[in-house]
Amino acid sequence: MKAPVTLIGAGNVGTHLGKRLRACGFSIVQVFSRELSKAQALAGELDAEAVNELSQVIAHEGLYLLAIRDDAIAEVAKSLSETGLHKGLFAHTSGATPAAVLQPYFERYGIFYPLQTFSTQRTPDFSEIPICIQAAGEADVALLTAIASEVGQKAVSITEKQRIGLHVAAVFVNNFSNYLYQTGESILKKEQLDFDLLLPLIRETAEKVRSLSPETAQTGPAIRGDEQTIARHLAYLQDEPTARRLYEMLTALIGQTRKA
Amino acid sequence: MKAPVTLIGAGNVGTHLGKRLRACGFSIVQVFSRELSKAQALAGELDAEAVNELSQVIAHEGLYLLAIRDDAIAEVAKSLSETGLHKGLFAHTSGATPAAVLQPYFERYGIFYPLQTFSTQRTPDFSEIPICIQAAGEADVALLTAIASEVGQKAVSITEKQRIGLHVAAVFVNNFSNYLYQTGESILKKEQLDFDLLLPLIRETAEKVRSLSPETAQTGPAIRGDEQTIARHLAYLQDEPTARRLYEMLTALIGQTRKA
Repeated sequence: MKAPVTLIGAGNVGTHLGKRLRACGFSIVQVFSRELSKAQALAGELDAEAVNELSQVIAHEGLYLLAIRDDAIAEVAKSLSETGLHKGLFAHTSGATPAAVLQPYFERYGIFYPLQTFSTQRTPDFSEIPICIQAAGEADVALLTAIASEVGQKAVSITEKQRIGLHVAAVFVNNFSNYLYQTGESILKKEQLDFDLLLPLIRETAEKVRSLSPETAQTGPAIRGDEQTIARHLAYLQDEPTARRLYEMLTALIGQTRKA
Repeated sequence: MKAPVTLIGAGNVGTHLGKRLRACGFSIVQVFSRELSKAQALAGELDAEAVNELSQVIAHEGLYLLAIRDDAIAEVAKSLSETGLHKGLFAHTSGATPAAVLQPYFERYGIFYPLQTFSTQRTPDFSEIPICIQAAGEADVALLTAIASEVGQKAVSITEKQRIGLHVAAVFVNNFSNYLYQTGESILKKEQLDFDLLLPLIRETAEKVRSLSPETAQTGPAIRGDEQTIARHLAYLQDEPTARRLYEMLTALIGQTRKA
């Protein structure tokens, strides 16, 4: 029998994960959100009960998924434990937060971290998402692995240090790349060109590293050491000090990989 | 009738463009490469003649596509003009090189710049690639537009300044993003984790900006001003001064967009 799941949080991650768990045949016992309307909207889709008080969360020996803001995890965990919940496995979904924040409150605790970026406007394809898990005991590692294997592309059991590394790497490839897209967009805007022009290149850059390592995939003036083109680009950026500094730094860093 | 095309260069861009032109029904007259074997291999696929001396390139009033290294364009153009070729339209495919380098040698010259990154290992989907064009006369703009519209997703007539801007933007979204992927890969390698774990996130980051602007799509600790997570990440990167400096810079830049 599949473990029952209680969803604490009805934001992006909670909503997408809840729907996926339900679609995979898991029973969602309750959905908690401080905003009752949000809890109700999601609970309705998941055949679950909606609650907006932590004291209403009922006890079972399954999984409690804390899909809430990083800075709310410790506080919510404390409140949950004060209501007398002790039997289940309590896991948060944050890549940024140590498992240890749950330790003072629960015997069984862990992390269930889908390595993906979620937004309300887009439906994630969980069959492609690796789910990173951490838990204290072997039985709980096995339980989270079983759930993550069904819900995601695969379950990856990681250490605390690996989780931090993954989260830092995620910031580089996601938030920072997105900032580079934003820089590209602002240059095109200045030239009265449509950002759409860059989309095929953005897509190909991302797809290329599925078959080539980023190191092998690198092209452009920095890796070629093409000083003439670099000088033209810096001249172009002379009135954009921010973009220019970033260009200089990344060009120097790519240049170092060339010399190495 | 479609303009005949002579291909100068049988590298990545020449090969992919040549095949696409042929598939679109264009006649390829000749393929030039300094390496006869390369010219022959491509010419064979394109029903064209292979030549490895510029003096063998024959005259017509169609298009001569110079798909060669940036720093070879001016020299090859000079040699071509010295063989007495003057009637055709001579266009290079480089986003990095001014049209003006062709001006001393030809009456009709321009740029045919597919805004994409090409590699031998991957077949580009031209039906998704915008092609940026520049030419001196109206008739030649029309000719390049007609060819680019057939070959690519669309033809975009651009100015010299716009081309430089596009090329700079392309470096940001392609070469620089790829460097961030490389940084992510090296962090995962250090943690003995497979780079594959990041691929769904890399793909979603690139796909997201098809429907959301990069500014709207931004998430993560920098845009949230989540100092605690940023501090944890910087502590994690303490032995990686390069990645750490880059992290600090990009976090500060994203933070500025938050305050603005």
